[in-house]
Amino acid sequence: MNKNSSNIMALAPNTSNKRETVCIFGTGDFGRALGQKMIQSGYPVVFGSRSPQTSNLIPKEAEVLSHTEAAQKAAIIIIAIQRQHYDFLTPLAEILRGKVLVDVSNNLKINQYPESNAEYLAQLVPGAKAVKAFNTVSAWALQSGTLDASRQVFVCGDDMEAKQMVMDIVRALGLTPLDQGSLLAAQEIENYPLQLFPMWKFPIFLSLGLTAFFFFYCLIRDVIYSYVYENKDYSFFIAISIPNRICPVVALILLALVYLPGVLAAIIQLYRGTKYSRFPDWLDKWMLCRKQLGLVALAFAFLHVFYTLIIPIRYYVRWRTEDGIISKALSNKTDPFNNTNGWLSDSYLALGILGFFFFVLLGITSLPSVSNSVNWREFRFVQSKLGYLTLILCTAHTLVYGGNRFLSPSSYRWYLPNAYMLSLIIPCIVLILKFVLIFPCLDRQLTQIRQGWERNPQY
Amino acid sequence: MNKNSSNIMALAPNTSNKRETVCIFGTGDFGRALGQKMIQSGYPVVFGSRSPQTSNLIPKEAEVLSHTEAAQKAAIIIIAIQRQHYDFLTPLAEILRGKVLVDVSNNLKINQYPESNAEYLAQLVPGAKAVKAFNTVSAWALQSGTLDASRQVFVCGDDMEAKQMVMDIVRALGLTPLDQGSLLAAQEIENYPLQLFPMWKFPIFLSLGLTAFFFFYCLIRDVIYSYVYENKDYSFFIAISIPNRICPVVALILLALVYLPGVLAAIIQLYRGTKYSRFPDWLDKWMLCRKQLGLVALAFAFLHVFYTLIIPIRYYVRWRTEDGIISKALSNKTDPFNNTNGWLSDSYLALGILGFFFFVLLGITSLPSVSNSVNWREFRFVQSKLGYLTLILCTAHTLVYGGNRFLSPSSYRWYLPNAYMLSLIIPCIVLILKFVLIFPCLDRQLTQIRQGWERNPQY
Amino acid sequence: MNKNSSNIMALAPNTSNKRETVCIFGTGDFGRALGQKMIQSGYPVVFGSRSPQTSNLIPKEAEVLSHTEAAQKAAIIIIAIQRQHYDFLTPLAEILRGKVLVDVSNNLKINQYPESNAEYLAQLVPGAKAVKAFNTVSAWALQSGTLDASRQVFVCGDDMEAKQMVMDIVRALGLTPLDQGSLLAAQEIENYPLQLFPMWKFPIFLSLGLTAFFFFYCLIRDVIYSYVYENKDYSFFIAISIPNRICPVVALILLALVYLPGVLAAIIQLYRGTKYSRFPDWLDKWMLCRKQLGLVALAFAFLHVFYTLIIPIRYYVRWRTEDGIISKALSNKTDPFNNTNGWLSDSYLALGILGFFFFVLLGITSLPSVSNSVNWREFRFVQSKLGYLTLILCTAHTLVYGGNRFLSPSSYRWYLPNAYMLSLIIPCIVLILKFVLIFPCLDRQLTQIRQGWERNPQY
Repeated sequence: MNKNSSNIMALAPNTSNKRETVCIFGTGDFGRALGQKMIQSGYPVVFGSRSPQTSNLIPKEAEVLSHTEAAQKAAIIIIAIQRQHYDFLTPLAEILRGKVLVDVSNNLKINQYPESNAEYLAQLVPGAKAVKAFNTVSAWALQSGTLDASRQVFVCGDDMEAKQMVMDIVRALGLTPLDQGSLLAAQEIENYPLQLFPMWKFPIFLSLGLTAFFFFYCLIRDVIYSYVYENKDYSFFIAISIPNRICPVVALILLALVYLPGVLAAIIQLYRGTKYSRFPDWLDKWMLCRKQLGLVALAFAFLHVFYTLIIPIRYYVRWRTEDGIISKALSNKTDPFNNTNGWLSDSYLALGILGFFFFVLLGITSLPSVSNSVNWREFRFVQSKLGYLTLILCTAHTLVYGGNRFLSPSSYRWYLPNAYMLSLIIPCIVLILKFVLIFPCLDRQLTQIRQGWERNPQY
Repeated sequence: MNKNSSNIMALAPNTSNKRETVCIFGTGDFGRALGQKMIQSGYPVVFGSRSPQTSNLIPKEAEVLSHTEAAQKAAIIIIAIQRQHYDFLTPLAEILRGKVLVDVSNNLKINQYPESNAEYLAQLVPGAKAVKAFNTVSAWALQSGTLDASRQVFVCGDDMEAKQMVMDIVRALGLTPLDQGSLLAAQEIENYPLQLFPMWKFPIFLSLGLTAFFFFYCLIRDVIYSYVYENKDYSFFIAISIPNRICPVVALILLALVYLPGVLAAIIQLYRGTKYSRFPDWLDKWMLCRKQLGLVALAFAFLHVFYTLIIPIRYYVRWRTEDGIISKALSNKTDPFNNTNGWLSDSYLALGILGFFFFVLLGITSLPSVSNSVNWREFRFVQSKLGYLTLILCTAHTLVYGGNRFLSPSSYRWYLPNAYMLSLIIPCIVLILKFVLIFPCLDRQLTQIRQGWERNPQY
Repeated sequence: MNKNSSNIMALAPNTSNKRETVCIFGTGDFGRALGQKMIQSGYPVVFGSRSPQTSNLIPKEAEVLSHTEAAQKAAIIIIAIQRQHYDFLTPLAEILRGKVLVDVSNNLKINQYPESNAEYLAQLVPGAKAVKAFNTVSAWALQSGTLDASRQVFVCGDDMEAKQMVMDIVRALGLTPLDQGSLLAAQEIENYPLQLFPMWKFPIFLSLGLTAFFFFYCLIRDVIYSYVYENKDYSFFIAISIPNRICPVVALILLALVYLPGVLAAIIQLYRGTKYSRFPDWLDKWMLCRKQLGLVALAFAFLHVFYTLIIPIRYYVRWRTEDGIISKALSNKTDPFNNTNGWLSDSYLALGILGFFFFVLLGITSLPSVSNSVNWREFRFVQSKLGYLTLILCTAHTLVYGGNRFLSPSSYRWYLPNAYMLSLIIPCIVLILKFVLIFPCLDRQLTQIRQGWERNPQY
């Protein structure tokens, strides 16, 4: 097996290299990994350590000196030490004057300290130029060279030149620097690696809530009702039949919730006659997590598809089919073919397949690399036009699935309608509102408002 | 819910920031959004406006001055005003001398004006340095910070330094500048956001044409024929049965059309004995949209797979199966197992699954982020070797599906062969031609030609 | 059809362009394509040729001169000539002194020459500054402008300034330069375009080996055994039934092998009491190809899913069902519904669907563009937590599939257990070891070790 492509780096000790020496304070895991990577990229590296004996872990091309000696050799000093030990820097203040101090530290909790580590560092050594960087990269990623996770390095600092020097190093290591502004951004940069899918929390909790609700709803209608009235044990419905009721219902509701905020925003704009008032906070937040809502909906749709496709393999279904056929054969009666049922059955399946197809297409175009390669007009075409087409197809799929069962009394056990009927409420509201909004009179006014026209201009 | 990661920006009014002031002419939607983003990235911003009262919509960190005053404060002036109002700049010519004017405007139609907006701006203020930029970014994307769509900002201009200054700002805002050359490129940059999938038009229209043709073809063979001769109403075939004939047929034809131009190009090169003559224009265009053709073919194959998988759930199929079994049970006769049919049925299904698997693999490797991480040799291996394997598997799938029905008279209703027979023509031609081309004698000559050898060198 | 978006480039002969002239030695395919692209990006281009007549293939905006004349016009000279002809440069040494020579050559084999072409070039013309670049870009990609494959250009060289000049050109052409360090890296950069999925070799050979083993294993158990003892010809099982035994088995084993090295590493670290000793080489290599192992496993799981879903369409299955029903109808006996079987059948299907769902999720998050947009904590959450969940679900799927057949004697033909039983060995070992490792006493110690604590510190 060959070396990994991202390892195409040369150890360059004896070349006419003009890169400037970098000093690293701290010989811990991260410091060493960073030092190794820098040496590979052609930087002479000096480690500053309390106990400057050469350890076999430190890259042998690097010098290990005392903090003072090491700091004097370089213009850039990377502080690869935990925040609680930063006070050892105070006595070094004179030597560090004018140097660039790079804070690479992370905390254990979000907002652990009142001020960010980088700002704390800047206060401790006011004569130096503090820059926050490298905290989003892990020692493991640096060592293995695979960099499976992000190559992005957020950089911030008050001194432009210092920041530029650090960003040049980032680039030379094969990483992507992202300038995030002044040192005030350090707090958020330090919180970033501690986040766990913040934009996904609301969609996931919402979908889990809906799942739990519909689980108990279906449990009552399909298992407990049958047990009470027919004394039949359908508890095994929990494995597939009930999930296959929950998944399409949750998927359809979430998909409708992707398009509801856009419709509400349009109504608010039409009502206010201007686009220059802020939307309510909840609406802003809702609009920002539409992509995540849509992808969670796609996950439920995916499960629905596979739960449906394995239906003919289920023992229960095979047994029921067999039992039905045998009893018909024994009683010597056959059903004639019902053309309406043929149409209904084929239509709802075809609508479902087409809806799933466009849903998958939407999912693919929301991949970062795909959405980066389309222009704004194409992105809006896909997410809006194809999105509404998907919603229409999925709603129609559910309506046709209901077919002539909507009015059948057997659909209302304990006065509870089938779950799919509940799932139709929000999609139908969204589609009706959208239909009203594309009436020429409203659409023209909305377009004007969105281009900046105001009904009651303020000045 | 936490803030979005791409919002990691600090408001930096009181830091020792050395970024240079940027002036924005126009306090409209886009101007304000851009100003807000620049302030967040640490740029002091001055707005130039006809009516320089402070509006509550303008970011409060920004100054609003008259055009003249604002222009004097900055070296870079962003013209966030529509083209038809550009003439207000003529009287300001003296103040704008030597400044960098950034044209961010877009048009409503492709090639709306004879010259691009940026060139028009350069003519109006000849003493200034016009740069085209930011027109591909939307106000919404800047405001929301989500930047779902592209982060790419095309930049062009005749003055290298001015362009560099603008590209630095683009980078500081977290966007990706792409240098597109001189101001002559402005026309295409202005057309870019108005394009709607230009590379996809031919493949999509072609596939829609094929779909329409085969729809009527199958309608005649499967619905109208049965209605005329057997007086049976199979109109519900329109929902699933006919689409499931169209999809595989169109997918196979499109897939073969992906590989046909390569084969034709090889034949042309062999015939001419050189690679240094241009291919006919239609062949060039065809070769450039092969990826899109292949992806449309994959979409049809995807639909075919799901249309096929739901076959056992269809009411019509369940009814037919039931009816068949009951009539056999009543007439007390059973078919013995036919080993040939077992082989044929399992083989065509297995070939179809493998074909679909490699097809999906091809689709995944054509994702921009995947194809960016492979080298040229790997890309060619996947797209050529795996591509031909897919074509062979899918053609074999269709051939085995036909099985011993090719010669059965029931396959020729009204002298019309089954649709799948028609779909085999192009794939078989492609595969035979390719097979001939890999004969050593031809392959060797072709390799020589592609390495630059000429049969009749011109000089 | 419109022009491709990546063609947004302007021919810029007559603008106030300040870009510096670039000289290209060699008017072959690659040299011309590169020259064309540079002209489009605003660089004046001069070709150096043995026979400086203007050919109709050379872009007409470029001058063609003798080598000496061309070299004098530019500071950067691109050597678009094959290595074996480099000696023509020796007499030009005086003119080339101090110039930047860009080696763009590739070899035909990995490690074809003892030293890289770029180092050979540097030796031939010691007074010039050799830089390696552009070898990963193909002439076809430059000409067509589509750049389907990678936009990455690896650059290396001993002179920082020369390298920077070349990287600026790379960026101006719309490509992404990646600084790979000193000229020592040239060997690996020259090998890179010749590699064919080096990280995939081990996973693919392993999976092919497992496939072959289980193919013959199942052939013996399912086809030959039946033929010998029951004299039945089940040879058509080779098409679907046997692949559908192999695929899940190989997928499960490969998935377990993704998580085994992590468990082994933890045990080694616990045993040694330190993380500062190198893992054995085989373990390091294994850990680096875990992603590829997982994706190959996903491919087998994908095939398993589709092989399973088409079961009800197979002629053999339809015939068997029909035959069973008819014989039951004729003998007038019906099986009662078995609730345990209902539970078992539905559970193993549900577990399989959920396992496949999380497996696909893992696959999507390993797409480069997705993994680049998550932070390190999120990446670990997905790959570790969701990964183990997938392994648990898939193992449970197989266990429940076995159900009460584990002890049935019919499962042991010729003392060979069913293939799925063999596939459970490694997953169960991994899950048990992992379960032991998350016991608080071990987990606490492991966390300490991973944070740098050592049981027997060396110094």
